[in-house]
Amino acid sequence: MFQNQRQIQIEWGDCDPADIVFYPRYFAFFDASTGALFEAMGYSLRDIRGQANQVGFPMIDTRSQFYKPSKYGDIVLIESQITEVGDASFDIKHRLFNDEQLAVVCSEKRVWAGLNEQGELKAQVIPDDIRQRMLA
Amino acid sequence: MFQNQRQIQIEWGDCDPADIVFYPRYFAFFDASTGALFEAMGYSLRDIRGQANQVGFPMIDTRSQFYKPSKYGDIVLIESQITEVGDASFDIKHRLFNDEQLAVVCSEKRVWAGLNEQGELKAQVIPDDIRQRMLA
Amino acid sequence: MFQNQRQIQIEWGDCDPADIVFYPRYFAFFDASTGALFEAMGYSLRDIRGQANQVGFPMIDTRSQFYKPSKYGDIVLIESQITEVGDASFDIKHRLFNDEQLAVVCSEKRVWAGLNEQGELKAQVIPDDIRQRMLA
Amino acid sequence: MFQNQRQIQIEWGDCDPADIVFYPRYFAFFDASTGALFEAMGYSLRDIRGQANQVGFPMIDTRSQFYKPSKYGDIVLIESQITEVGDASFDIKHRLFNDEQLAVVCSEKRVWAGLNEQGELKAQVIPDDIRQRMLA
Repeated sequence: MFQNQRQIQIEWGDCDPADIVFYPRYFAFFDASTGALFEAMGYSLRDIRGQANQVGFPMIDTRSQFYKPSKYGDIVLIESQITEVGDASFDIKHRLFNDEQLAVVCSEKRVWAGLNEQGELKAQVIPDDIRQRMLA
Repeated sequence: MFQNQRQIQIEWGDCDPADIVFYPRYFAFFDASTGALFEAMGYSLRDIRGQANQVGFPMIDTRSQFYKPSKYGDIVLIESQITEVGDASFDIKHRLFNDEQLAVVCSEKRVWAGLNEQGELKAQVIPDDIRQRMLA
Repeated sequence: MFQNQRQIQIEWGDCDPADIVFYPRYFAFFDASTGALFEAMGYSLRDIRGQANQVGFPMIDTRSQFYKPSKYGDIVLIESQITEVGDASFDIKHRLFNDEQLAVVCSEKRVWAGLNEQGELKAQVIPDDIRQRMLA
Repeated sequence: MFQNQRQIQIEWGDCDPADIVFYPRYFAFFDASTGALFEAMGYSLRDIRGQANQVGFPMIDTRSQFYKPSKYGDIVLIESQITEVGDASFDIKHRLFNDEQLAVVCSEKRVWAGLNEQGELKAQVIPDDIRQRMLA
């Protein structure tokens, strides 16, 4: 299934007094990596998420395991891959490498969602063209 | 085992363009709730975490499941409980309620850690007095 | 003019490897303090900000001066006061005290804004009832 | 004096319910841009900041003016320049451009600081080699 990778550099503000990345920041890194995955599939971030009645793909379940801390200034590689595509949800796995060693693994289950006429957030069937690219 | 609860109000900056809490912020809420749990046990945050060679309790595994979004201005209740105490690690479960409905559940596994003489972060046996209070 | 105060506790995730608050976090504290100021005036946060075509009071100019660092676990007091009310903008001053010493001063100029029919963010005259409470 | 530029892409988690960047995030962008400026001067981030008794260059005064909002997915350019070098402090100006239009201007005054023998954060004279590169 579709995959992508990107590099980021750990910033001062990502780190805590223990001098390592404050772990909630990893979830922000992975959320941006999921955005980058859709961009790599050819979608505009503005079109696929956050537009008008389309609110994109809210998280329903995510888990991270931390094997090795990263520090300020480190350049890390994040590999992201779609691992499952359901009717109205999909799974992603992110693996973050630091100095070629696996440092963090994250799994995500997201729902494909939009606002209905009552303004409530509801799951929707993933459009066919998007599903096809996810499976590529 | 020891438990605690606290209320927080969702801030504007916690929310994303879908007008709901940006999920990495929940992990920051839960991290602060773990701090509050230790404070409720009678420990000073400065003493138990972030001091000199003692770096506290880094996360090794955390998972959140999201059942219901929360919005700007919502006042939510977070219940935190220690669920397991090992030799050098412990588990915590957080449950976040919004309007009395369960909205997010989070599990954490943390290691009790400090810096050794080489300046490396290492697991350490949880001190007895802390273990006793965790089990209370 | 209207003023309010609130206490917050510095969290682990607010602090950086120098073991002091990462300064962008102060701006988030002050933004939430401006929200709290409106809530203290009697407005619902959901009504006054972030609703439908009403986007509230975006920042146009803000400055902070840092006199004393704050650390993890510190309980700080933030005093917020409206200092000027123009036709479509207003000024706020925040003062953050730590252990009764002035630690940070922040000034804000915000515009009263909404989305026009083209979906563009535009300044609007501050409604009279809100102006009256600001001046109280 | 020394200058540098870098591009960043606005992330979902940088934006608030008004669908524009939550302004405290700009300060985090600018802090990272100051780090990048030192890296462009040839310094390792780990060496120049956050090491042992050297805590780098804490902020003492910063101001941002916001002319144009940026949105999720926007690619923005940040130009950073040292504008003044004192004995123990220095000034930086950041200008953020979106679609070639000036969107945010930020000025910073930072102090060159380290921990003294009592563990207190104190201003220190900027080392000569660093001063020379700042003035280049």
